[in-house]
Amino acid sequence: MNKKFIVAYKGTRYNGFARQAGDKVVGSGIQTISAELELAIEKITQQQVRIVGAGRTDAGVHALAQVCIANIDTQIGNSGLLLALNNKLPVDIVIKSIEDAEEGFHPTFSGKRKMYRYQILNTTVSCPFVAEFVYHFPHKLDVEEMKVAASELVGTHDFRAFCAAKSNVLKKGSSTERTIFDIVVARGDDEIIKIDVTGDGFLYNMVRIIAGTLIDKGLGRGMPIAKILEMRERKNAGKTAPASGLTMIGVEY
Amino acid sequence: MNKKFIVAYKGTRYNGFARQAGDKVVGSGIQTISAELELAIEKITQQQVRIVGAGRTDAGVHALAQVCIANIDTQIGNSGLLLALNNKLPVDIVIKSIEDAEEGFHPTFSGKRKMYRYQILNTTVSCPFVAEFVYHFPHKLDVEEMKVAASELVGTHDFRAFCAAKSNVLKKGSSTERTIFDIVVARGDDEIIKIDVTGDGFLYNMVRIIAGTLIDKGLGRGMPIAKILEMRERKNAGKTAPASGLTMIGVEY
Repeated sequence: MNKKFIVAYKGTRYNGFARQAGDKVVGSGIQTISAELELAIEKITQQQVRIVGAGRTDAGVHALAQVCIANIDTQIGNSGLLLALNNKLPVDIVIKSIEDAEEGFHPTFSGKRKMYRYQILNTTVSCPFVAEFVYHFPHKLDVEEMKVAASELVGTHDFRAFCAAKSNVLKKGSSTERTIFDIVVARGDDEIIKIDVTGDGFLYNMVRIIAGTLIDKGLGRGMPIAKILEMRERKNAGKTAPASGLTMIGVEY
Repeated sequence: MNKKFIVAYKGTRYNGFARQAGDKVVGSGIQTISAELELAIEKITQQQVRIVGAGRTDAGVHALAQVCIANIDTQIGNSGLLLALNNKLPVDIVIKSIEDAEEGFHPTFSGKRKMYRYQILNTTVSCPFVAEFVYHFPHKLDVEEMKVAASELVGTHDFRAFCAAKSNVLKKGSSTERTIFDIVVARGDDEIIKIDVTGDGFLYNMVRIIAGTLIDKGLGRGMPIAKILEMRERKNAGKTAPASGLTMIGVEY
């Protein structure tokens, strides 16, 4: 039976969500979220399964609601399975819900909209309680400038300038056209600037490069967004902002 | 020159604030917040100083505003020193401010009111983003019952029943009378129950034992508070709730 899991995790001490070919399993020092989930499932059901997630979050990236499936054959009900698995998982990985997956459901291919959040703590002095979930950037950013630049990224564009050079998409010569439905930039009372990006899919490091580019704009520098998109060269966009600030918020199906 | 530091930290990976007699220094595996601060000060000023804090928070306990003093002789201004020291500190310890201490100021003895917060995440399933700062307690707690019990603890009482048996106060035969000015219990939208305790000082583990006792009350069990106070026996109060849920909020002078 295919089961659909919603999983929240703090990615700080993990090498990303998905086990890469050649990665060793848990205990080797190279830990992934999916390997931890598979290990917990094995402990409870004695089955070796393969977890498939909606997004391959990178090392250090967090998730509020990663969507996964795994084919598990068990007599345990979904709510009992939820408690049993959470009991076996480390405190930084929590399964929020388990339900039977609908026929033909696939976490990646069935997804219509993906949402990511990038968080910048824009204070002179950092805060130890949020440090792992933000990029601490001490220089004052102009959020209004960031909003204007963000609005210029919305729409269907060739986002090649916002794609890491090591991306498989580039190696394969696949399309780098993507659609961003919405970007919301807002500064909270806690001086955390949240950049919420919704799109049909993202290129490798795309949200982190968008964050780095918007930080440039917040400092009043960098090439105009339209020009960066048009020239399609990675060097014209901003730096890849650190993984710690990125959280996968969820997927709409 | 005596300098007053306000320090925030996540206590998870530390053996408490204060270096104990016999503890080794940083790098030995036994790390304390004060040793990290002293090491950063030595790196910047080449001076070996002794940090004194307002409260000796235990292993795993956090602080929003620990107040410390250290006698530092430096040409660097306080704001420059703040940046330089934060640059040397690990991400889970942050100095929020540095100022010259007033003549005769002592972080412990000058304190009039100390505030601690105990946080209980009262949801079936935990949350990886707050797990380190709360005690995850999955059984539903009746907050109204907890409030009633909390109000019975307010005032000047002999809190011997709320003092860890290994306390030096008990060994020395010192007074176990303390004054609690206020306890505020509230459940937030995030289902975190916050217990804010303000007092003139606390016995060893007193706030954690109060939290454990209020949890009992939230489950509708345990001896009446007046009786626990009157009998002065540790075994009648609740369990010592885990360190992860406790945060030192600050000190009023």
